[in-house]
Amino acid sequence: MTTPIRSGNRAADQLRPVRITRHYTQHAEGAVLIEFGATRVLCTASVQENVPPHQRGTGRGWVTAEYGMLPRATHQRSDREAAKGKQSGRTQEIQRLIGRSLRAVFDLSLLGERTLVLDCDVIQADGGTRTAAITGAWVAASDAVATLLASGALAASPIRGPVAAISVGLVQGQPVLDLDYAEDAGCDTDMNVVMTGAGHFVEVQGTAEGAAFTRAQMDQLLALADKGIAELVQLQQQSLSNE
Amino acid sequence: MTTPIRSGNRAADQLRPVRITRHYTQHAEGAVLIEFGATRVLCTASVQENVPPHQRGTGRGWVTAEYGMLPRATHQRSDREAAKGKQSGRTQEIQRLIGRSLRAVFDLSLLGERTLVLDCDVIQADGGTRTAAITGAWVAASDAVATLLASGALAASPIRGPVAAISVGLVQGQPVLDLDYAEDAGCDTDMNVVMTGAGHFVEVQGTAEGAAFTRAQMDQLLALADKGIAELVQLQQQSLSNE
Amino acid sequence: MTTPIRSGNRAADQLRPVRITRHYTQHAEGAVLIEFGATRVLCTASVQENVPPHQRGTGRGWVTAEYGMLPRATHQRSDREAAKGKQSGRTQEIQRLIGRSLRAVFDLSLLGERTLVLDCDVIQADGGTRTAAITGAWVAASDAVATLLASGALAASPIRGPVAAISVGLVQGQPVLDLDYAEDAGCDTDMNVVMTGAGHFVEVQGTAEGAAFTRAQMDQLLALADKGIAELVQLQQQSLSNE
Amino acid sequence: MTTPIRSGNRAADQLRPVRITRHYTQHAEGAVLIEFGATRVLCTASVQENVPPHQRGTGRGWVTAEYGMLPRATHQRSDREAAKGKQSGRTQEIQRLIGRSLRAVFDLSLLGERTLVLDCDVIQADGGTRTAAITGAWVAASDAVATLLASGALAASPIRGPVAAISVGLVQGQPVLDLDYAEDAGCDTDMNVVMTGAGHFVEVQGTAEGAAFTRAQMDQLLALADKGIAELVQLQQQSLSNE
Amino acid sequence: MTTPIRSGNRAADQLRPVRITRHYTQHAEGAVLIEFGATRVLCTASVQENVPPHQRGTGRGWVTAEYGMLPRATHQRSDREAAKGKQSGRTQEIQRLIGRSLRAVFDLSLLGERTLVLDCDVIQADGGTRTAAITGAWVAASDAVATLLASGALAASPIRGPVAAISVGLVQGQPVLDLDYAEDAGCDTDMNVVMTGAGHFVEVQGTAEGAAFTRAQMDQLLALADKGIAELVQLQQQSLSNE
Amino acid sequence: MTTPIRSGNRAADQLRPVRITRHYTQHAEGAVLIEFGATRVLCTASVQENVPPHQRGTGRGWVTAEYGMLPRATHQRSDREAAKGKQSGRTQEIQRLIGRSLRAVFDLSLLGERTLVLDCDVIQADGGTRTAAITGAWVAASDAVATLLASGALAASPIRGPVAAISVGLVQGQPVLDLDYAEDAGCDTDMNVVMTGAGHFVEVQGTAEGAAFTRAQMDQLLALADKGIAELVQLQQQSLSNE
Repeated sequence: MTTPIRSGNRAADQLRPVRITRHYTQHAEGAVLIEFGATRVLCTASVQENVPPHQRGTGRGWVTAEYGMLPRATHQRSDREAAKGKQSGRTQEIQRLIGRSLRAVFDLSLLGERTLVLDCDVIQADGGTRTAAITGAWVAASDAVATLLASGALAASPIRGPVAAISVGLVQGQPVLDLDYAEDAGCDTDMNVVMTGAGHFVEVQGTAEGAAFTRAQMDQLLALADKGIAELVQLQQQSLSNE
Repeated sequence: MTTPIRSGNRAADQLRPVRITRHYTQHAEGAVLIEFGATRVLCTASVQENVPPHQRGTGRGWVTAEYGMLPRATHQRSDREAAKGKQSGRTQEIQRLIGRSLRAVFDLSLLGERTLVLDCDVIQADGGTRTAAITGAWVAASDAVATLLASGALAASPIRGPVAAISVGLVQGQPVLDLDYAEDAGCDTDMNVVMTGAGHFVEVQGTAEGAAFTRAQMDQLLALADKGIAELVQLQQQSLSNE
Repeated sequence: MTTPIRSGNRAADQLRPVRITRHYTQHAEGAVLIEFGATRVLCTASVQENVPPHQRGTGRGWVTAEYGMLPRATHQRSDREAAKGKQSGRTQEIQRLIGRSLRAVFDLSLLGERTLVLDCDVIQADGGTRTAAITGAWVAASDAVATLLASGALAASPIRGPVAAISVGLVQGQPVLDLDYAEDAGCDTDMNVVMTGAGHFVEVQGTAEGAAFTRAQMDQLLALADKGIAELVQLQQQSLSNE
Repeated sequence: MTTPIRSGNRAADQLRPVRITRHYTQHAEGAVLIEFGATRVLCTASVQENVPPHQRGTGRGWVTAEYGMLPRATHQRSDREAAKGKQSGRTQEIQRLIGRSLRAVFDLSLLGERTLVLDCDVIQADGGTRTAAITGAWVAASDAVATLLASGALAASPIRGPVAAISVGLVQGQPVLDLDYAEDAGCDTDMNVVMTGAGHFVEVQGTAEGAAFTRAQMDQLLALADKGIAELVQLQQQSLSNE
Repeated sequence: MTTPIRSGNRAADQLRPVRITRHYTQHAEGAVLIEFGATRVLCTASVQENVPPHQRGTGRGWVTAEYGMLPRATHQRSDREAAKGKQSGRTQEIQRLIGRSLRAVFDLSLLGERTLVLDCDVIQADGGTRTAAITGAWVAASDAVATLLASGALAASPIRGPVAAISVGLVQGQPVLDLDYAEDAGCDTDMNVVMTGAGHFVEVQGTAEGAAFTRAQMDQLLALADKGIAELVQLQQQSLSNE
Repeated sequence: MTTPIRSGNRAADQLRPVRITRHYTQHAEGAVLIEFGATRVLCTASVQENVPPHQRGTGRGWVTAEYGMLPRATHQRSDREAAKGKQSGRTQEIQRLIGRSLRAVFDLSLLGERTLVLDCDVIQADGGTRTAAITGAWVAASDAVATLLASGALAASPIRGPVAAISVGLVQGQPVLDLDYAEDAGCDTDMNVVMTGAGHFVEVQGTAEGAAFTRAQMDQLLALADKGIAELVQLQQQSLSNE
């Protein structure tokens, strides 16, 4: 089994070029364009001074996410969900995953009774949109929290630490990091991993598209993810240290 | 850290009593009531002589699943999705998981241009409804395939082998197998694992509800799942060997 | 005109075997599986401590019903209403009928400002699902009321007496009681009759599927219904007298 | 028990003034405004040269109905169903009833593979809108059939005879014919009866709003309905004999 | 370029016969049937003692409109929007236009915290339904306001003056007033103009269906509209002066 | 009356800085980011090898548009239409306007039986999103047509010439060109004008938000629009001349 040649001569354990652009739009409390290669996702964080019914009167806040894809973010135009009148199961799965991932690093009681809404809209898709969204949404959330701290609305940050996400998979039997669209479409196994800055797991979602995968392969995939997440967390921190 | 006392004095690595009742209803080609303790799911397999558009003209079939919960399957009545006019994100996630899991053991080209629809309806819920659904749906699918083989509609079985699913999790820091509702509601980490009869992974979906979990904990959870799945596959085979 | 031979050699004025199983599931305040021959309907009664807007502040309660059919309760799989995003006209007609029938024997002012929701879900269909649902829902409602009386939430029962329902029809010109699916599909006239324990009418819904029916035929049908209802009311009482 | 004084000094067995205006609008093949007192329903019949899927290739046609109420047809404005995005259960029940009633007097094989759509829209409501709709729709259907006969599209009329509908009820214990809104709102029992010109039953839908009703009361109500229908059928015929 | 011959020998700058019938139905506070030739629109005005959220607590009222078309108001039957479950973009555009047009002549602070709902339902369509609707809705609104003044609910009229609407267009290059359906379907440019009694513009909506139109053509169209509106306002006033 | 001071010291007849970026994303046949000051709209043009039913078999193509706004394009987050399950009336109005405007300069018979879909998604909103969308969509459409010409799919361009759009309005009584959000929110009259390269009108949509406007004011507004459109058409041409 030989290493498949990856686009741009990437090594099997190498991320695509990642770019994080803060303040990409001007109205939101946090507005981050994140790029994983050709994948581009706009992540905005909006502060709303209310909470959903299940949190009312608890003194605790809420963090939630919505996900969308512009119709021509993809190779073939996909139907606009607003025109179809419903979000697909895939869309709902992804936005639930983003919301859970961010909540995993939030102390909701420190947020107070307000909601942070993370809108992740895919401008251009080339694989890995959900992992880019989680990684970018955390930066946007950090900016929004900084605004609340600066205005005195919050006394202490409710963010306990970083969270980031990456995909790993088996392409022609070979474990690779950060699959692009072509790799994802042809792979045997696709796994999305969400981890904290401390290297602990928040979410692991692995799916055998072709043959089922073995325990040894899973171990290889988790090791790759661990490496990728560590790099992403560093990039998040660098981005936030620039003003 | 001490072992939490489980309901019915179950050991941490012990399944709840599993019961598989075939031919539970009379119209479907496969109709299985599966029980994991107090969780009861009716899984029917229906053969339809057509396929969705993406398979038309390919000579290949399709396997899909739908999931529902009776309004009072739960402690508190939940709203009827048909009356609300939409399926929840959770429902869609689960039915997509069931469909993928079953397709993982199907050779769709041997099925011919027909669809196998697996309806998994929860009559009573006590945790683990999606894992019971997958495990029972495979038995229902096997009965439906047997009908097609018996009638001569199929010459060879499109089923490559068994597939089953179980949940594992960390309850008060302790890894346990097959969580009931009370354990699930209070756990730190919840993981659903789908595996083949050969002990390979089809799906792994782990979520940290509280603290993120470590690699060591993940290894413990996967080992527990492996044990549980092996037992479930044996129960599936026993069930099918009775007529 | 000769008597059509009915399945199982039933006489024209004979009910199918009726079975009423209480406490069929564990969460609901009332949970009854009722069987009219091969027709099986799960009727649960849920107590909710609120009322719809039109009853708020009146001190009076409400009784309502929802009806559903599992996709493969029928010979051919029918589409899942939750997936289609709307309940059919037939479903709405039936659930409105069940609700009105139960309210006819309830003193809503004795119920207090709470709602009794009756969920009637068809597990297996062979004709007469709505009449089985009404008959079983009354038993489930009785169990739920008993719970409220036992807990002291209610001082007196709001149920004024029994209500039950049966179908009658003209099959090949012959009046018959309690039509199964085959009889229903081929009959000229189908009538559903809901009556109280005192033998008075709550609902009469007769439809000529083929030729219009005469006044004399209607009289025959009403007499058959009267006989069937009397037997059903007796079976309801027997069921409730067992503990 | 004394006779309740009816609006306009109507006798208990007296219809409200009925007016049938044909050719009320110009585009439809049949367009009838029917008035039962202050109730005014516009019934149009439209011929469509296709049939629903269940009739395709059978050589048989179809007759169907839709029902609507203008928002301010009623005392209080009711929400527009098009704006709410769904038809109420009541609307669906009524339009299904109208469709069945008309089909009862149609020989669909003589209609050919075309559909007759009956739109019944309530301009002003004062009780009895569904019975007015059925009675008027039959006249509109007759005009549409006459158009098809005149054009040679049909060789023989598919209408086997007249059909009409009327409500009867128990108001303060007294049987009355053709209830207006005030009577309907306060009555104990409300029954809608659909009959052919030959005096046979097509539909009987009786509901006890308050106390259940006895067999003797039902006999009185059916006799009243029989008288009312006979008068309506005569009015239909008179209307069609004018050109 | 010669004057196209218009139906009924109308001159290019001539309105169709306009008829305004007040009190057309009995329940609404204002109920006007307006006819522009064969176009017939029923406009009702309903007073509701509440306002939408954006006006609550402001002391100001609201005026809104809804528009609908009976399925067979048109040459070919159009689908019922209530049955389709959504209002078309065209319907929404028109009802938003009617609402804005009426609000333009209302002093909402004099209306108090109540809503005037204008329902405009097309009974028969022959072009110009939206302009007829606006013109008729103003008369219905005037009747509703008169009711509120008579009852003492209002001390002063919130209506600042009349508003009316008319269509103009280029048919075969010729500017014409008040297009009927045949003219509208074949015209190059269609413009709807809403003006106050003082001859000022409230809305101008012009669309080139074929070739784009010049500034000189626009001037001609606006002059025609001015003439037509002046006549409509006079007809509105005449109608209101009759009791 | 003095000239209101505009943001950035803009003169009353001055456009905001306009930027047109072609090839903004990589998958679409045309992909243009257009900026009118802080307003940023991504316009993609997608070629689809089919047409809607009303064009099938005619040999003619179709041009259509969809419009959306990212939830946080605005000062306050607006609800995601895909999550609400329907597009607002405003959205539908705008996308219908964009579609009509583009079709006005297309010879659909030269396009062949294919559809050009223009997706206009607002990344950041500061007034004038619909006029920016039309102006940018025309550039995207030109790029898509160039692709079809280059591949030989088209022999001649179906585009007859440029189309662009601009808003004009009365702010504190003063006519101004290209209103930003603050001006738009406070203006008396808002008018959107769509014109061809030849200076002819395609659409004029003027609305009095406050006082109705006079004919003299309308003339001033149209003159301003004429100036703005001429500048926009020049910018479109410049953009297309760069490669």
